[in-house]
Amino acid sequence: MSLAPGEILSDRQRRTRAELGGLNIDALLVTSLPNVFYLSNHGGSAGVMLLTGQDADLLVDARYAEAVDQRQASPTACPGIRVRNVPASYDQAIVECIRELGCARVGIEAGHMTVARHVWLREALGSVSTFVELRQTSNLIEDARIVKDAHEQQQLRQAASGLNSVAEAAFGSVRPGATEREVAGAIEGAVRLAGYDRTAFDTIVASGPNGARPHHQAGDRRIDAGDLVVLDFGGVLDGYCSDLTRTVSVGECSAKSALVYSAVLDAQRAAIEAIRPGMIASEVDAAARRVLDDRGLGHAFTHGTGHGLGLEVHESPRVARSRSDAGASEVILRPGMVFTVEPGAYLPGWGGVRIEDDVLVTEEGCEVLTSVTRELLML
Amino acid sequence: MSLAPGEILSDRQRRTRAELGGLNIDALLVTSLPNVFYLSNHGGSAGVMLLTGQDADLLVDARYAEAVDQRQASPTACPGIRVRNVPASYDQAIVECIRELGCARVGIEAGHMTVARHVWLREALGSVSTFVELRQTSNLIEDARIVKDAHEQQQLRQAASGLNSVAEAAFGSVRPGATEREVAGAIEGAVRLAGYDRTAFDTIVASGPNGARPHHQAGDRRIDAGDLVVLDFGGVLDGYCSDLTRTVSVGECSAKSALVYSAVLDAQRAAIEAIRPGMIASEVDAAARRVLDDRGLGHAFTHGTGHGLGLEVHESPRVARSRSDAGASEVILRPGMVFTVEPGAYLPGWGGVRIEDDVLVTEEGCEVLTSVTRELLML
Repeated sequence: MSLAPGEILSDRQRRTRAELGGLNIDALLVTSLPNVFYLSNHGGSAGVMLLTGQDADLLVDARYAEAVDQRQASPTACPGIRVRNVPASYDQAIVECIRELGCARVGIEAGHMTVARHVWLREALGSVSTFVELRQTSNLIEDARIVKDAHEQQQLRQAASGLNSVAEAAFGSVRPGATEREVAGAIEGAVRLAGYDRTAFDTIVASGPNGARPHHQAGDRRIDAGDLVVLDFGGVLDGYCSDLTRTVSVGECSAKSALVYSAVLDAQRAAIEAIRPGMIASEVDAAARRVLDDRGLGHAFTHGTGHGLGLEVHESPRVARSRSDAGASEVILRPGMVFTVEPGAYLPGWGGVRIEDDVLVTEEGCEVLTSVTRELLML
Repeated sequence: MSLAPGEILSDRQRRTRAELGGLNIDALLVTSLPNVFYLSNHGGSAGVMLLTGQDADLLVDARYAEAVDQRQASPTACPGIRVRNVPASYDQAIVECIRELGCARVGIEAGHMTVARHVWLREALGSVSTFVELRQTSNLIEDARIVKDAHEQQQLRQAASGLNSVAEAAFGSVRPGATEREVAGAIEGAVRLAGYDRTAFDTIVASGPNGARPHHQAGDRRIDAGDLVVLDFGGVLDGYCSDLTRTVSVGECSAKSALVYSAVLDAQRAAIEAIRPGMIASEVDAAARRVLDDRGLGHAFTHGTGHGLGLEVHESPRVARSRSDAGASEVILRPGMVFTVEPGAYLPGWGGVRIEDDVLVTEEGCEVLTSVTRELLML
């Protein structure tokens, strides 16, 4: 396990604390699990953190008590944290912690907390003599997470490079007669053997016509000679995600397959070459889209070019067409951002091609973190 | 793929519709993905349903368009549904759909919708001349899902029985010198080969002292002769979850291991034998806890006895001590409910034992869906 060292955690907490004043809150209730992990190294499936100007309380239930105690006695202890046991309900424990610390205005993570929890907490906190106000905050920690610190860059590099052996296993398992599910099984076993904690998402194995569905689930279809097969997989290493797609040909490929493949590969190259700090994320998307448009495949590229990668497999920045409808502000690329570059072309009834790598924005351009060959393999 | 037939979907929609009047809403906005799947057979990672007294609109983005079209042309088509394309933002598409259908009072799923989405929708819907009111609903579809219909019972039976071959692979991979991660890899590969869509949760392989952590993640520890190893795994078959835990001994086990194991096994048997429709769920927990208390291991049983199983790996009913704090009402067991029975004993520094099976409540008692031997294996 390679967790963030204490000084990095302190720094993340310090930067979060610095935001509290401006938002006119004296505490932040962190309920998003990736955010709890980011601030504390606690990676369980439950846990809540309350961060005030002085204190950092981590609330965990009995299932995680021993793991937290052991970690707190290790070099990856979270500094300045108080661990509280949650005997039954997290909501109840949150209320008690807020009351005990005497917070008057508590920020909640509006993008994560459910309406039901919000209502329950508001009522429970409103019923005591000292009224506690819950204020909505938006992406407070996510906005920090978008630029990866030194520890995270190293983790993401490692998470990405581990996919080489997984890709080998994937390519080795693709053969006529194998089902998509068998290939997915080989990939997922290899993800574990490569040292990952888990797969980062449901493995996609989309063969022949199934390739026309970008999010096809691996099913019972048997792979056939001449098929293109889209293989999309990733692993989570010490909390950090990797994500890779390769499209391979089963034996000799048709002229059409070769044409579509090279168009998608050229689109991906164009996008990667375009990346510079200071540019708008949607310009990366435009670079890929332009190539596919030129080859008459613009209509077949039905999704965005990429998504941020970190503690979550889909996070900021979104690398896609600029959105007019939702008023989403455009992300400007900065060194330390990590995202996927994954153009594709999907032709219903025929199949599809997608090629995906993970990149880290640098001062000059970008570093490609994944290093599996992008040439069209004919297996 | 074995999806619910159209008449079952119609019946589920009909039962949901019957609730709308009593709640004084003319539409329900279904944003919980398991609930969307339950009503429509759409199992993508995104999708929203708007159910009115007459209409059922399914909103999906381009990634799923082809899959939905194909399914709608198949025997597992969702009857009476209108499929709408989401060009960019789901939130925007929801607003347009609500306006077009002329709904005045729309129920939201308060336990799933985030505060941020609620605020956004409320503002977007409040800004038009005809004001649309959003009303909070709680567990409307979950309350129906708690009792499994005939199709679901069959799916859960199949999902559980498929774990036999996975358990074989798991037992075969446990040997001195193997890492926990390698065993987890063998299990996860076997989950795929057994025909599951994916693993139901992160596989737990907790060897020796790591067994004291109920939610230990498989790590780099090498399994040693004499260890107890807790193996907790499951697969999702056509949307439905299975969940099994076995604890095995690596070679001859110690007298203490044998004692703790038999206490947990007796606790599990007592819980399973206690199950009857009409009883309160916490009584099942009490039956297991009584046995461990009698053996001096009550303190070591640090979690609840079980959780409901269905489209989610943790759903209602919760089978645990009755909660005084949160005012949660007690669930009364009814035929058709499916849950896990998984008592455990965790001794910090030493290790742990957990034994878990999945059961279906019947008219007379329960049917155990999983069928892997519960005797202590010495591998």
